[in-house]
Amino acid sequence: MKAIVVTPQKPGVDIREIEIQEKGEIRVMTRLSGLCGTDRGIVNGDLDFARPPPGNDYLVLGHETLGEVVEGNDRLRKGDLVVPVVRRGCGECLNCKVGHQDFCETGKFTEIGIRGAHGTMREEFWDSEENLVKVAPSIGEIGVLLEPLSNVVKATRELESIQRRMLWRCEDSTYQCRTAVVLGSGPIGLLFSLTLKTMGFNVIVANRRPPSSVEEEIVKATGSIFINTSSEQLPEMDLLVDTSGHPSAFVPLLQKIRKNGALVLFGTTGKERAEITAEDVTRIVENNVVIMGSVNASKDDFQQGGNLLVTWKEMYGEVMSKFITRKVSVEEAPEVLEHKVPGEIKTVIKWK
Amino acid sequence: MKAIVVTPQKPGVDIREIEIQEKGEIRVMTRLSGLCGTDRGIVNGDLDFARPPPGNDYLVLGHETLGEVVEGNDRLRKGDLVVPVVRRGCGECLNCKVGHQDFCETGKFTEIGIRGAHGTMREEFWDSEENLVKVAPSIGEIGVLLEPLSNVVKATRELESIQRRMLWRCEDSTYQCRTAVVLGSGPIGLLFSLTLKTMGFNVIVANRRPPSSVEEEIVKATGSIFINTSSEQLPEMDLLVDTSGHPSAFVPLLQKIRKNGALVLFGTTGKERAEITAEDVTRIVENNVVIMGSVNASKDDFQQGGNLLVTWKEMYGEVMSKFITRKVSVEEAPEVLEHKVPGEIKTVIKWK
Amino acid sequence: MKAIVVTPQKPGVDIREIEIQEKGEIRVMTRLSGLCGTDRGIVNGDLDFARPPPGNDYLVLGHETLGEVVEGNDRLRKGDLVVPVVRRGCGECLNCKVGHQDFCETGKFTEIGIRGAHGTMREEFWDSEENLVKVAPSIGEIGVLLEPLSNVVKATRELESIQRRMLWRCEDSTYQCRTAVVLGSGPIGLLFSLTLKTMGFNVIVANRRPPSSVEEEIVKATGSIFINTSSEQLPEMDLLVDTSGHPSAFVPLLQKIRKNGALVLFGTTGKERAEITAEDVTRIVENNVVIMGSVNASKDDFQQGGNLLVTWKEMYGEVMSKFITRKVSVEEAPEVLEHKVPGEIKTVIKWK
Amino acid sequence: MKAIVVTPQKPGVDIREIEIQEKGEIRVMTRLSGLCGTDRGIVNGDLDFARPPPGNDYLVLGHETLGEVVEGNDRLRKGDLVVPVVRRGCGECLNCKVGHQDFCETGKFTEIGIRGAHGTMREEFWDSEENLVKVAPSIGEIGVLLEPLSNVVKATRELESIQRRMLWRCEDSTYQCRTAVVLGSGPIGLLFSLTLKTMGFNVIVANRRPPSSVEEEIVKATGSIFINTSSEQLPEMDLLVDTSGHPSAFVPLLQKIRKNGALVLFGTTGKERAEITAEDVTRIVENNVVIMGSVNASKDDFQQGGNLLVTWKEMYGEVMSKFITRKVSVEEAPEVLEHKVPGEIKTVIKWK
Repeated sequence: MKAIVVTPQKPGVDIREIEIQEKGEIRVMTRLSGLCGTDRGIVNGDLDFARPPPGNDYLVLGHETLGEVVEGNDRLRKGDLVVPVVRRGCGECLNCKVGHQDFCETGKFTEIGIRGAHGTMREEFWDSEENLVKVAPSIGEIGVLLEPLSNVVKATRELESIQRRMLWRCEDSTYQCRTAVVLGSGPIGLLFSLTLKTMGFNVIVANRRPPSSVEEEIVKATGSIFINTSSEQLPEMDLLVDTSGHPSAFVPLLQKIRKNGALVLFGTTGKERAEITAEDVTRIVENNVVIMGSVNASKDDFQQGGNLLVTWKEMYGEVMSKFITRKVSVEEAPEVLEHKVPGEIKTVIKWK
Repeated sequence: MKAIVVTPQKPGVDIREIEIQEKGEIRVMTRLSGLCGTDRGIVNGDLDFARPPPGNDYLVLGHETLGEVVEGNDRLRKGDLVVPVVRRGCGECLNCKVGHQDFCETGKFTEIGIRGAHGTMREEFWDSEENLVKVAPSIGEIGVLLEPLSNVVKATRELESIQRRMLWRCEDSTYQCRTAVVLGSGPIGLLFSLTLKTMGFNVIVANRRPPSSVEEEIVKATGSIFINTSSEQLPEMDLLVDTSGHPSAFVPLLQKIRKNGALVLFGTTGKERAEITAEDVTRIVENNVVIMGSVNASKDDFQQGGNLLVTWKEMYGEVMSKFITRKVSVEEAPEVLEHKVPGEIKTVIKWK
Repeated sequence: MKAIVVTPQKPGVDIREIEIQEKGEIRVMTRLSGLCGTDRGIVNGDLDFARPPPGNDYLVLGHETLGEVVEGNDRLRKGDLVVPVVRRGCGECLNCKVGHQDFCETGKFTEIGIRGAHGTMREEFWDSEENLVKVAPSIGEIGVLLEPLSNVVKATRELESIQRRMLWRCEDSTYQCRTAVVLGSGPIGLLFSLTLKTMGFNVIVANRRPPSSVEEEIVKATGSIFINTSSEQLPEMDLLVDTSGHPSAFVPLLQKIRKNGALVLFGTTGKERAEITAEDVTRIVENNVVIMGSVNASKDDFQQGGNLLVTWKEMYGEVMSKFITRKVSVEEAPEVLEHKVPGEIKTVIKWK
Repeated sequence: MKAIVVTPQKPGVDIREIEIQEKGEIRVMTRLSGLCGTDRGIVNGDLDFARPPPGNDYLVLGHETLGEVVEGNDRLRKGDLVVPVVRRGCGECLNCKVGHQDFCETGKFTEIGIRGAHGTMREEFWDSEENLVKVAPSIGEIGVLLEPLSNVVKATRELESIQRRMLWRCEDSTYQCRTAVVLGSGPIGLLFSLTLKTMGFNVIVANRRPPSSVEEEIVKATGSIFINTSSEQLPEMDLLVDTSGHPSAFVPLLQKIRKNGALVLFGTTGKERAEITAEDVTRIVENNVVIMGSVNASKDDFQQGGNLLVTWKEMYGEVMSKFITRKVSVEEAPEVLEHKVPGEIKTVIKWK
């Protein structure tokens, strides 16, 4: 079958005919593959951790997937839409034993399309039921957003768990008195904005530039606000989510995080350093501020993300499909994998 | 009565005869006052936030107290040892309404001996029962450590609450597989080491210099290890507690915090900045690391701290009294308030 | 305006022209009123706790509401669909102070249409924004289910909070290995079945009789199973939810609750007693079983319930509207309030 | 070596010379064995679940132990006092995998001296370090109380976890406004009273008869109150702990449990049934009451229990040793195992 393959640490990407013997009782036909910074990092040879499965010299790319069951079982039937979880646990540490490979402690996990396991940028794959999450047929193509969304769900769920350390909800039991600022308006930033909005926060999406028209439309339709920080000051906030990875973007905002507030670190690709001062430390200490890094997701996060997509499809309708800014054929995939598409939110490869 | 008073923001400290009309149904005779960096910061005029009670032009110093009830009620009787809580809530925000003034959101709290309320460096004071924590008579003079300890209890309690985000306990339900490093070997550092040890952690106390003989004795007797970081490397750790306040001390250790680990920021007086890089951010994100600032304590933290002091007195006996490295008379107090006592762990003023 | 009124503790119900001076900056036109057992209990004079507002000798009935804003403000605009929360807190106890009047400890709360406050079975009412929950326009008429659903959301949220006492999720972080049995197939039973299904449980709805055709359709369409306990045995279960209120229904099932399982008590109208034996107690103790009673809901439970309705509307489409088995005019209301409608799931009054 | 052995389900108990090949790197000399109702139930042949280790036709009794290390390792040294945990996990279910065999779901655990594993009523035994909890030398003989106490610690810890479902602490962050009633004044009842007192509750110990002089002394010295329910009414309560196992004892008190309150079921040996009515169910539902059964303990519960014993020894001194109402020689053991000792709190066998 046709597959999009790379040789980790070597720049370049190919479409190739391959044959893979795989375990797993469910056969899935890939319908859409989403592209993200990790894929491009691997294609450009920049990511040290990318590696083929043991015994292979190539890696099939692809970890954002919308698939359709071709051969199933009692619980997953032919025609069901499914999304595979990305990380597969080590089986050794306590968190992996309880289905939380997102908190794996040994580092011996694999990640499809990234570390030690083939991805899903190919016509079809076999997987076991336990790694596949069924999504409602009604959500259709935006199901390809579930994988990135699952990571956002994990982060917000962990945030809520952490903030139980005191009373963080408002006088009416909701979050209506809390302001969240999301740094970055890429797909992750926008998915954070929708998730936090659904939780009840007042949400500001911030970037150093004006919004693209699609960004503007999504932010507006979902009841959030866009602030261009190159021309406007951010207000004080209870929650800051950084999707940029630039210390230079979030460190200067530490002084704007309110008492009992939190900073969620999600981005990792930033390059710009920043200096942290004793004043920053004092602010964190005196204000009981928490900073949390968050990575990956559990199967339950995928399932909750699936429910969110259904809700958003119903509430925001057409706006959700604006997330997919470009659909390319398999043949066009190498091009969009090698170079970022201008104005893109999510570029996807259409397999069938 | 005799009291130790300052004029906030003006360097200097006096012993003066004062008369104070106070609310509160319990009359308490001060027995010991502990000294800490905050007291000296106020005496030196360095702390912006220090302020007298409304309508006063002076502030009685003192927030680390061991007192004895002189006139009591049904629950607090004459002769009982008591320790007053420091922070008094704003009465407006949700956390203050539920007895968690340590998480006050309005900032309208007062703190005895620090912000807007007279402290206890005086022969006696009146207070209400709700602000007084009874301690077991058996612990005697080390009861003066309860106030600093309460802040440590709050921090570790919050840490445990936060770490419920995943499985952090070991295969046998304890913390025996976890290593905690405490930066700083002052009274707060040592109290953290004892608390974490009691919780079941393997504990390393670290400083940039060799331990003093008292530090060495306390660390050894309580089953922890001292590492002089100017000559020895710290190992990887699950928990890092900074009591130094210097970003330069803890930022370089971010790369040594293990997956799912935590950094507790407690110190605020540091001056040395540090640069945070994208690699640091990536480590925090990929490892699900949490950084939490912690300040102050609730009444319950005082009560739990009281239980800890009883336990430690029984387990470590004489070692606990080594914490009090010097006892001075009221007349000597200005001297030790103006200048740090060499080799000191805790210097106390003996009132009676 | 026209209103449906009762004199608490006196059987009977009237349609009457009334005028009410009310606080609240939002004017709401009632669109639909749902009927439940509590309404009928009040109409029949059976409920001791029903009482008019202070100074009134009558009570406007109605606590299940779908309304439309007629005069609004910045956050709630003309045309928005809203549902008022039922219980209004005492303002004195800690739980009410933090928006959890569902856990009110003083008992001094009011409940619209039930205790000390007029309900919404009238053409329109004024209320403050803080008591009104906005629902997505797309859900339309099934918004009238939000009030009963909110109580189910509270119960399952509390269940999850309680079950954090150990590991209750399955090896893949979901609830797919857990079986929940819901006793009773009325609206509350069916809403529990949908909520638990969405959470990931295997759900069995049980009753002592065969399902009505509507019950059968809803249960089937939402992926649950119906068991008629008069002819079939229930299997062992991890969760038992009783909506019947009959001790005779759930006590015999205590022996079928698995280790670490839970029994949620929700129903209160049952009459049939049951004997509890030492064997039952031993089962509860040895199996670490929890039994929890749950009543009422917070505003956040209404908001989460609103999200669930949106999800279900999208996933189950027409099936959701089957919940409303009969819509009557205001003039027909007394009839359906006095006598239970055969085969009913939810009977509603259409105001406009 | 000498051992106290039974043949499960056959009444009778013997002192016998046995030889056991055991795994485990630590050799422990038994110093004291505590006796409890389970031991006597096994000796009388009443307990169905008692069974010898696989391949054995006899069972060495004994699960309440105070031992001394004879051959140790780096962490447990010769002379250390140790207490072995009782239940050994199945290794299969999630809770056992994380050290919570007290929540074992498969039921395939063993329990020393009870189910499938030899107990410690013998001169010495080998065990692995992971099953042994070190206790402070200072607590001495009352270390034999640690095993029963561990179960109390588990129950109260679980209670606190469950009660996080709402605000249960008082306005000052403590439990000083909460009243706990403990039904039963045996060793478990008294250990509950001390634990709850240390947590900050107002504690009432209740029995159907006047207290013995020892019970009276312990209850008084630890600041609790004894109520003889045959002549005096219990007040309303926030927490009810049943150590009797009689439904007839706790069911009539359901109407006295306040809003948001809890009933902890711990006893299992009761025989007297009781009827539960719809009024009881309504009380549980309307008041958000929780009922929880609790059994066994994790290693961490033993460690926390060890800290409590140290605290109580320091605070209550001689009173703690009153718990041991009789010390018998090994030769006298069969006698006290067959018949309850009048006025006993804890009877112990002295091995050396």
